[in-house]
Amino acid sequence: GKINEGEGQGRGGGVIDGVKVPVVRLNLGEIAEATAVAVFPVCSSEDKSKGVEEAPWEYRGKGGFGIVEADKGWKRWVVLPAWAPVMGVKEGGVAVAFSDGRALPWRVNRRYKEESILVVADRGRNEVTEDDGFFLISSEDELKLERGATLKEKGCTECLGSVVIVVRPPRESNDDISPEEWD
Amino acid sequence: GKINEGEGQGRGGGVIDGVKVPVVRLNLGEIAEATAVAVFPVCSSEDKSKGVEEAPWEYRGKGGFGIVEADKGWKRWVVLPAWAPVMGVKEGGVAVAFSDGRALPWRVNRRYKEESILVVADRGRNEVTEDDGFFLISSEDELKLERGATLKEKGCTECLGSVVIVVRPPRESNDDISPEEWD
Repeated sequence: GKINEGEGQGRGGGVIDGVKVPVVRLNLGEIAEATAVAVFPVCSSEDKSKGVEEAPWEYRGKGGFGIVEADKGWKRWVVLPAWAPVMGVKEGGVAVAFSDGRALPWRVNRRYKEESILVVADRGRNEVTEDDGFFLISSEDELKLERGATLKEKGCTECLGSVVIVVRPPRESNDDISPEEWD
Repeated sequence: GKINEGEGQGRGGGVIDGVKVPVVRLNLGEIAEATAVAVFPVCSSEDKSKGVEEAPWEYRGKGGFGIVEADKGWKRWVVLPAWAPVMGVKEGGVAVAFSDGRALPWRVNRRYKEESILVVADRGRNEVTEDDGFFLISSEDELKLERGATLKEKGCTECLGSVVIVVRPPRESNDDISPEEWD
């Protein structure tokens, strides 16, 4: 995808005066190819289970430009790198934005508590399966992540979706926390 | 953004049994950072000027995850690499998908005619300015790109947006066109 300002001037274009608009060809595997990034509809944890349920189900990238075509209009989207667990979600995925890590079922340190997290869940896999898997649930009207074993103990077999990844934000560059405190 | 399956087991997480969900931290500058990609609402050339006008105006990436928050719901989106002309569009950008290159104002070869193109236009710059710039217009109810000089000759001073880039799709790998025909 090198920008070639003069492409319109070449054999292909045939114009005489300079073309001032850049014409660029995407490279295979570059962004916009389905293999390079994943796009998910986003809902806020504050929208609770309603947000998770209402987010578009289909939103696959189509054609050479990887244009996302959703089955409904949606305001919030996120682009994630092509991590394997993320790429495994073909449809029904949703990214839930939590303002902090309190919704996580493991004990979290101070940093986790203060940081926002983004949880990608596969709504197509809404059965509680593996004991050591993590599942998105609504508990006392709040979205939470819970371990499969814990849910099974409670007799809970359905969930809003299986959690495929938890994403933490980039570290701030002006971070003054000592390295020992970093997890 | 290396995936660290065991992050939850470390000092930070404090759990004893393995965490089966990957927890990953985005790197600064990685996808989802506003500096790495640009996301645009997409309309089809078949939706004509209505599509261009209706696409969300604001859709900036916000926060550490670069979540796109649009001022209205929209079905089609595209992710483009952080090319400078593309990154210069702060809001009001739109990507128009054309099924072929006939809307271009320069003479195009066979390949151009057969290939889809994606035109990114800045709707905030809707005045016809530079003679050698290119502008998105609606002519005889069809979306087209036109050169500034040509529009000025016709007394046309307003447009749907200034064209910032024309994107061509990745070359197909099983392409059997001889190299000489490639533009």
